[in-house]
Amino acid sequence: MRIAVLGVGLIGGSIGLAVRHRLGAAVIGFDPDPLTLRRALEREALDRAAESLIDAVAGAEAIFCAAPVGALPRVVAGAIAASGADTVVTDVGSTKRGLLDATSGLDGYARFIGGHPLAGAETAGVEESRDDLFDGARWYLTPTGHSDGMLFDRLHGLIAGLGARPQAIDAAAHDREMAQVSHLPHVVANVLASAAAAESFPDGGSRPVEVGRSFRDAIRVAGANPPIWADIYSSNSEALATEVDATIEGLREAVALIRTGDTDALGAWQSTARDDRRRMLEADHSSAPLVELRVAVQNRPGTVAEIALALGRAGVNIEDMSLFPAADRRTGAISLWIAGEPEAGRAAAVVAGLGHTVAPVPSADS
Amino acid sequence: MRIAVLGVGLIGGSIGLAVRHRLGAAVIGFDPDPLTLRRALEREALDRAAESLIDAVAGAEAIFCAAPVGALPRVVAGAIAASGADTVVTDVGSTKRGLLDATSGLDGYARFIGGHPLAGAETAGVEESRDDLFDGARWYLTPTGHSDGMLFDRLHGLIAGLGARPQAIDAAAHDREMAQVSHLPHVVANVLASAAAAESFPDGGSRPVEVGRSFRDAIRVAGANPPIWADIYSSNSEALATEVDATIEGLREAVALIRTGDTDALGAWQSTARDDRRRMLEADHSSAPLVELRVAVQNRPGTVAEIALALGRAGVNIEDMSLFPAADRRTGAISLWIAGEPEAGRAAAVVAGLGHTVAPVPSADS
Repeated sequence: MRIAVLGVGLIGGSIGLAVRHRLGAAVIGFDPDPLTLRRALEREALDRAAESLIDAVAGAEAIFCAAPVGALPRVVAGAIAASGADTVVTDVGSTKRGLLDATSGLDGYARFIGGHPLAGAETAGVEESRDDLFDGARWYLTPTGHSDGMLFDRLHGLIAGLGARPQAIDAAAHDREMAQVSHLPHVVANVLASAAAAESFPDGGSRPVEVGRSFRDAIRVAGANPPIWADIYSSNSEALATEVDATIEGLREAVALIRTGDTDALGAWQSTARDDRRRMLEADHSSAPLVELRVAVQNRPGTVAEIALALGRAGVNIEDMSLFPAADRRTGAISLWIAGEPEAGRAAAVVAGLGHTVAPVPSADS
Repeated sequence: MRIAVLGVGLIGGSIGLAVRHRLGAAVIGFDPDPLTLRRALEREALDRAAESLIDAVAGAEAIFCAAPVGALPRVVAGAIAASGADTVVTDVGSTKRGLLDATSGLDGYARFIGGHPLAGAETAGVEESRDDLFDGARWYLTPTGHSDGMLFDRLHGLIAGLGARPQAIDAAAHDREMAQVSHLPHVVANVLASAAAAESFPDGGSRPVEVGRSFRDAIRVAGANPPIWADIYSSNSEALATEVDATIEGLREAVALIRTGDTDALGAWQSTARDDRRRMLEADHSSAPLVELRVAVQNRPGTVAEIALALGRAGVNIEDMSLFPAADRRTGAISLWIAGEPEAGRAAAVVAGLGHTVAPVPSADS
């Protein structure tokens, strides 16, 4: 198997290392920055450094576009255009809707499936790439009704093979969720840091202000990598603006409550926040034994994406997946491996709700 | 020397341990909760557990009121009323203006000097008290023009003896600073946690949402100890509301910028936040050799507080202080020890600006 990686920073380099060490496949990399490309080669994240994007993708079965968000539309379009009909193209960008819109008119767009691994800091370089960067990490995939099911299956398996936990999600839902749990905290951190600095140093100077852990945490991500984050804010501006508006509304309600000075009501508000925090941080228990579900499907376009997205929406994780097309390629079966009987039961109900026939496969030792 | 500690949780217990181990003084403690009082005794934070507040403060040269913010006005009033004319009374509460207002009409209020050590979590108990809890920690003191200078000097020395870095600050400035760097982050964390939970689990249920480090950090303090934080919000509602309003305004500007999607402007905004974050977190370098400044003063009431507050406003730390009243008790001298020549120079200018004569004292080895 041959894999192409376009953009070989921390994420691209780590994909290269994981593919080489865990899947034993050959990795061809390209980066517009010759220094980065040489470092990735020195780090042994690549089998070969390509001369160009076209050189890199020739003969690849999967292409990972790991460029900054702002460059992705161009890189993905180039990858689709330069690769063959059996090549799956994916990316690792932090926002998905804009990229999907940008690629949806292209010849071969059914071969593009957006992706986003929740791993790695945007600020690090290829020197810090590791083959275990994705171990246990969520890796979102955003197939659409037009996505090629066989290629989605291949990509899903590849990503699980890198150690990550792939999950299908609608691109718009992905962008909303990222706006909320990643982009919004950056915006809030910026606002807190700048407001505090303006008040603490009105003359523009700086004297030590005593800053405790709560404030340090609150502004930790303020001003992170400006060019990268400007691209992220811009590419997700609509969803992010909605989240910022919701935060403004929440602060308005909070300030009205604070002005009352009512300790009972403030205590109740604090308790609600405690419960909400707990709900947000509840652990994801997915180490139960795997259950295989066999789904009989009409192998029409979009079925695989439809099933994966429905399970993603229901919060069910597909630990592994296999497609078994019948000889006519019109019908077939999909095996889904789900962790634990309760989750598998939920998954079966979701899939049956889509009109498919689904049944658990007895495990070898039962 | 004998010290009284009223309220023997984490902070009160740690004061007891530090006073006993570092100053070799006797510590008498009282707590309305008999179990807490017994535990403090078992932890050897006290020489003796008193039967009552009045029993605890008898013969004490300094009284530390370490009760929750909501209970402080009552405890401080009791401590002032029950103690002698040469006893300094202080507290360790997170907000200062309300307490100062509550005590300002009392007989003997010149002996009360508000305090606030920036150390210890509100949630911990006496079991976690340690004699090094205050090592290197800022410990704010809020003397006023009415404060007794000799007692301020004694308290300043005591607190430095516990390992902390005392600094005088105006009570209103203290509350504004705390609103900004401590209380506001809690309010924002609450709002982020509750908004995210409402959107992620609209049906009130919970499914695992992928939450990265930026969001975990952003909501770490959400819902902290509800009764204690309700008291803090309530006792600092005015300053806190001002900070929340400023945050709302900052978010309004941010969301307008985000809606433009202008990557250049967003990048510039991100860079400003990076610089502001750096200014807020810049290290406080105070390990330079100490310089002694001798100030000749008219020993009128309020002079010591006036000097300490002016230096605090200028960001100058007084590492140590000594008062030398003349026999007439109307004039005298104050020695101030400041870390490093540049800081000492700034301090001398500030003190001279108040109309005092000030001169460096040659060190023994120069």
